[in-house]
Amino acid sequence: MPQRVTHETAECPVARAVDVIGDRWSLLIVRDAFDGITRFSEFQRNLGLAKNILSSRLRELVAHGILEIVPGADGSAYHEYALTERGRDLFVILVSLRQWGEEHLFEPAEQHSVLLDTHHNKPLRKLEPTDTTGRVVTPSEAFVQKVSD
Amino acid sequence: MPQRVTHETAECPVARAVDVIGDRWSLLIVRDAFDGITRFSEFQRNLGLAKNILSSRLRELVAHGILEIVPGADGSAYHEYALTERGRDLFVILVSLRQWGEEHLFEPAEQHSVLLDTHHNKPLRKLEPTDTTGRVVTPSEAFVQKVSD
Repeated sequence: MPQRVTHETAECPVARAVDVIGDRWSLLIVRDAFDGITRFSEFQRNLGLAKNILSSRLRELVAHGILEIVPGADGSAYHEYALTERGRDLFVILVSLRQWGEEHLFEPAEQHSVLLDTHHNKPLRKLEPTDTTGRVVTPSEAFVQKVSD
Repeated sequence: MPQRVTHETAECPVARAVDVIGDRWSLLIVRDAFDGITRFSEFQRNLGLAKNILSSRLRELVAHGILEIVPGADGSAYHEYALTERGRDLFVILVSLRQWGEEHLFEPAEQHSVLLDTHHNKPLRKLEPTDTTGRVVTPSEAFVQKVSD
């Protein structure tokens, strides 16, 4: 198993972000949570994931404040998992992953699920990085500045 | 080691995307490539990653058409790694990870690197999912439609 190096003290926000959610299963659990899944058994059925791994990923997501444990909506003894505000803010990352996947990982004739907005029933606009004036920024027009003390 | 389940045949573009890049190291390698790193030794030094793991991740990124091997720019025998078009299209995902990290994973007084555009030297705008009219779409205003045959 690859060594797990933590980037919790990294100055790079990308490094910290991937440390928290840069794991296949964590991202798919979050995706399912956006799709309305709340219960352990539902995540398990949908992801086809071993219980111990699902359990550990859910625990990590709760520890990182992305999911929180809430009482079952039906008043039963089963608790549920709900996205926190920090978790809901991952929406744009899921959308960017989805759009990249749609564009690059499907053959033209291949079926794939689509994300629509409830008001128009149409696919969302393609996300694009923009500058303060709204102009699209390409990778070569952006640079990282390391902030020093 | 968690079982590796492939989502290559999944209908969900998010699942396919995380299958290809949903790995801490792969995302950080791509980040470094955007920062201008091209050589094995530079990736290794910057990421502090074991050679065999770096080697395997680079091989996967090349196999998935995200990086390509190109001759050394200085005419030396060392080859280099360059982002393909598919790889460059990951820019928006890196920006979304960075913005989420900036917002949620740093204390107010904590230093972090920033991504600026070369024209204004200012941070990029916050990425937000929008509908066809340009209105911001919240998670509850979006739904996944499974496409059936």
